[in-house]
Parts: sequence; C-alpha cells; structure tokens
Amino acid sequence: MNRSEIEAGYRALQSSFAAAIEGFDGEAAFVPDVWARPGGGGGETRILSGGRHIEKAAVNFSAVWGATPERLTESVAAGDSFYVSGVSIIVHPANPHAPTFHANLRYFESTSADGTGSAWFGGGADLTPYYLYEDDAIHFHGVLRAVCDRHAVADHAAWKQECDRYFYLPHRGEARGIGGLFFDHLTGQLDEVWSFQQDLGSRLIEAYLPILERRVTVAYGGAERRWHEVRRGRYVEFNLVWDRGTKFGLDTGGRTESILGSLPPRARWVYGHEPVPGSPEAALLEVLRAAPRPWQ
Amino acid sequence: MNRSEIEAGYRALQSSFAAAIEGFDGEAAFVPDVWARPGGGGGETRILSGGRHIEKAAVNFSAVWGATPERLTESVAAGDSFYVSGVSIIVHPANPHAPTFHANLRYFESTSADGTGSAWFGGGADLTPYYLYEDDAIHFHGVLRAVCDRHAVADHAAWKQECDRYFYLPHRGEARGIGGLFFDHLTGQLDEVWSFQQDLGSRLIEAYLPILERRVTVAYGGAERRWHEVRRGRYVEFNLVWDRGTKFGLDTGGRTESILGSLPPRARWVYGHEPVPGSPEAALLEVLRAAPRPWQ
Repeated sequence: MNRSEIEAGYRALQSSFAAAIEGFDGEAAFVPDVWARPGGGGGETRILSGGRHIEKAAVNFSAVWGATPERLTESVAAGDSFYVSGVSIIVHPANPHAPTFHANLRYFESTSADGTGSAWFGGGADLTPYYLYEDDAIHFHGVLRAVCDRHAVADHAAWKQECDRYFYLPHRGEARGIGGLFFDHLTGQLDEVWSFQQDLGSRLIEAYLPILERRVTVAYGGAERRWHEVRRGRYVEFNLVWDRGTKFGLDTGGRTESILGSLPPRARWVYGHEPVPGSPEAALLEVLRAAPRPWQ
Repeated sequence: MNRSEIEAGYRALQSSFAAAIEGFDGEAAFVPDVWARPGGGGGETRILSGGRHIEKAAVNFSAVWGATPERLTESVAAGDSFYVSGVSIIVHPANPHAPTFHANLRYFESTSADGTGSAWFGGGADLTPYYLYEDDAIHFHGVLRAVCDRHAVADHAAWKQECDRYFYLPHRGEARGIGGLFFDHLTGQLDEVWSFQQDLGSRLIEAYLPILERRVTVAYGGAERRWHEVRRGRYVEFNLVWDRGTKFGLDTGGRTESILGSLPPRARWVYGHEPVPGSPEAALLEVLRAAPRPWQ
C-alpha cells in the first residue's frame, strides 16, 4: 500500500457510498464542493440535503499534508511534516425511527526533519438511533463483527469496547448511540490493516442500508420529531464538546464547513427534558445510560 | 461586602430581571428548579419557555463551595478550597429581529490549606443580534458605558475590547454578536467592584428591554426564521466549543442542565450557508466579520 492507492480507495468508497445513498433516496443528489488547503492538499466534500428520506448526509474525502502544526503533538520540531488522508461519512435520515450513521477511515504519516517517521491507520463506524430497534443494533454489529472475523489484524471485542468508550457524553451520563467499531493508531502490519479497511468500507452499505429501508416508512408525528431534535442536540453536544477530531480540526484551522458538515440539520434544547416513563423514548434512554450491550 | 451580601444581591437581581421579562412577555412565567450540589452549595435555575415574545430564557443563581477540583487550576494542593457565587441571564426572543441577551455576574474565593487566599469578581453583558439595528447597538453600549463612567474601578474601553475578544469564533472568523462588557479576575478594591456590579445589574433591564419592545413586533416569515436558526447554530458553536465557563463546568461535573440552559431552543446547520449579497442578513455578517465598532 502507498498514499495514492489509499487515496484511490477512499475516493472509491466516497463514490460508492454516495451512489448507494442517492439510489436509496431516489430524489436528492450529493453536491460536490472541491477545496484546496493553502498549506498543502485538499479534498472534496459532498453534501446531500432535503431528500425524500435523507434530511442531510455528507461523504467527505480529504488528503492534506505540510509542516506539522504546533498543536498537532506536544513535541513538534522544526522540519516535522505530516500527511493525512481520510474519508468520513454521516447520514441523518428525516424519519426519527431511522438511526444516524457515521463512519470514518483515515491514514496518517508523520515524518521528522531527520527522515524518520511513522504511519498508522484509524477509523470506525457507529450507529445513533432515536428509537431502539434491537434487530437493527444486532444486524449492524453483526456485519462489523463478520468483517473483523475475516482479518487477523482486527480485534472486534477491543474495538467495540473502544467505540463505546469514545462515543460517550460524560456530562449527560449517556452513550451517543449503540456503538460499533473504533480503532486508532494501528502502526503495525499496515498492508493487512489496509486490507481490513477496504473490506470494512465495502460493507458499510450492507451494515446500514437494510436498517434505513425498514425504518424510513414507520409513521411518526410532531412528538417523535421533537424527540428526534432533542436527541440530535445531544449529537451536537458530543461533536462540539468531546469529539477529538472536531476539536483538533477547529483548533488548527481546519476547513470549518467540512468539519461541521457532520452536524444534524436541526437540533433542539429543552431544559430538563425527560421522556415519559415506559415510553419508547425512555426505553432508548435506558439503554444509552446502561452498560453497553453485546448486540449479538 | 461579604458572601451573604453578594448572594442576596445576586438573588435580588435574578428576581427583578425575571419579573421584568415576565411582565414584558405577558404570558409565560419562569419555572424555578432548586438544586443542591453534593460537594457543597447549590442554586436555583429558573427557565421560561414558549412565551408570547420570549421563546426561552434562563435566570440562574448559584453559590457552590468545597474542595478545589483538580481541574480548576494547574497547581491545586490537598486542602485547597473554593467558593463561587454568580447569577447568569440569557434571553432568546422568538422574533429574529430581537437580539439574544446574555449577562453574568460572579464572585470567587480561593483558599489554600494554609489559610491564605484570594477573591475576585468577574462578569459582563453582551448582545447577539440576528439583524443589525445600529440604534439598538448604540443604546445597549451607551447604557453599559454610562454605568462604567460612574465607577472609578470600571474600565469601559478595556472591558468592551475584552468582550469583543472573548465572544469570537475563530473557526468562523466571526464575532458572536455586537459585544458589550467582559471583565474577569478583578482582585483589587473589592468593595468598589461590588458597588459597580450592583449598579450594572440594576441597569441590565434598561439596556435590553427598550430593544426588545421595539423589535418583537417587526414582521417576519420563514426565511427570517431559518436565518435565525442558522445564527443560533453559531451561538451553540461558541458556547460548546469556545466558552470557558461551559467547558469548565462540563469538565468538572457541573450541573449540565443549568450550564446548557443558555443554549437556544432550536438551531440549524446548513452546509456552506452564505446570505444573499446586499441582504439584511449579509449586512449583519459583514459587521460580525469586520473589526469591532465603537457603537457610540
């Protein structure tokens, strides 16, 4: 593997995922926005909004490089440089019964002035439902587990746990969603990790689309919509307060519109909001506040 | 001045400001929520929502104390303790032509295990319009300037500048609003600063209510409402990404619902949103992106 092979792979995933979402929606299309980074590199942000089923989605590719920003690491020296490429995907369906989907695959290289360096992969995929459907959670985790089981470099148990740990809102005592996979700083066996990433990328649609298909037709009204917006407020809180990538991007002068392309189209804050005990909304919240489940 | 005098003053401001807002709205009332802090102290959060003119408002009083949390300062030692009391006010009107108002007055004490310690005041008030009315900005700053001019301890020029510096979104290259006053760590002449704070508190209604009165009757439609929500998204971004008080509160296990009571009721994110050149929306944005104006 090398940079151009990885970039081509990420671009291909961007296109195939976008095509699948457009095909599913049947109405709205992704609008591309190609951008260049003054310090080196650039990317292509593609946004779909106001679809029949998909209220907002973003599939973003980027490959940027240059002198390592001082805030990237604690021990940056003159002459240090970095390269990072990645693809990130977020889908916010309009129907509150259909969960939000998020995935990210990324590759880093860090090079010192003396020529030594290191490279690593990171990534993951996770699901944020607004109503709990156990079979959706089981299906989603099942696809991710099956991908991991095909690759010796993948550690499903550890990465599922890491995902539950990462997508957690300490100030709410709540998980963001029902988890998935999260891995980072995989420095060894890079060819094998790259094979795993490609396999994972190719299965994302299989992990998500069947869930979308069966939930976008569930009837809902104003109360469900309101709950949807309150929960999307939590999504905003996670991304803006706790997400390392968002913080790092905004701190180091990343491209704001691409970074915040993941935010939901609408959100709502209601003081002291608690669902009615015994309601479907309360059932979701109980799961998000409890110890993560295996979903198998 | 002493703790109980300050607490009584903050509570009185909470009540008088809430009464003025209720009187103005004419329909909705603040709902009190009294809470206790496990480690010492507590507060009273009062929230108004769904009013005729005021979509959401919060007037919060708190006085909390205890062992200094490790994250409060970089050099915390066993036996260190803190005390902090404050009142914070936020008003989000429903009409996009009426600006959001925010004010905060606070008093800190920090005591070391050996008995030495320090005390200081902080606070300020600022305005976040969604449409620019120059006379509103001039009136608001005029009232704040007049308060400062009556007190030798107050430095209007410096504190206005500090406000512009503080309420700024680097990732957007935009000010949050048209500023006001911001001061912090005032450690000297505490009696005089307390007199100033009381005077400032008593003028907040005079600074804001006339603006509310003349803007809540301006006609608006869906386009203005949408712009309102997009700009409120920026308000969320500032509070969750950059505001030191919010960050500190969420990091140290503060009361989440009180801390996030300042968030707007509804917000919206639209990729790459830019107002039509020459429009009133563009006029506001130009001001927020330019060097701060004196407003006098």
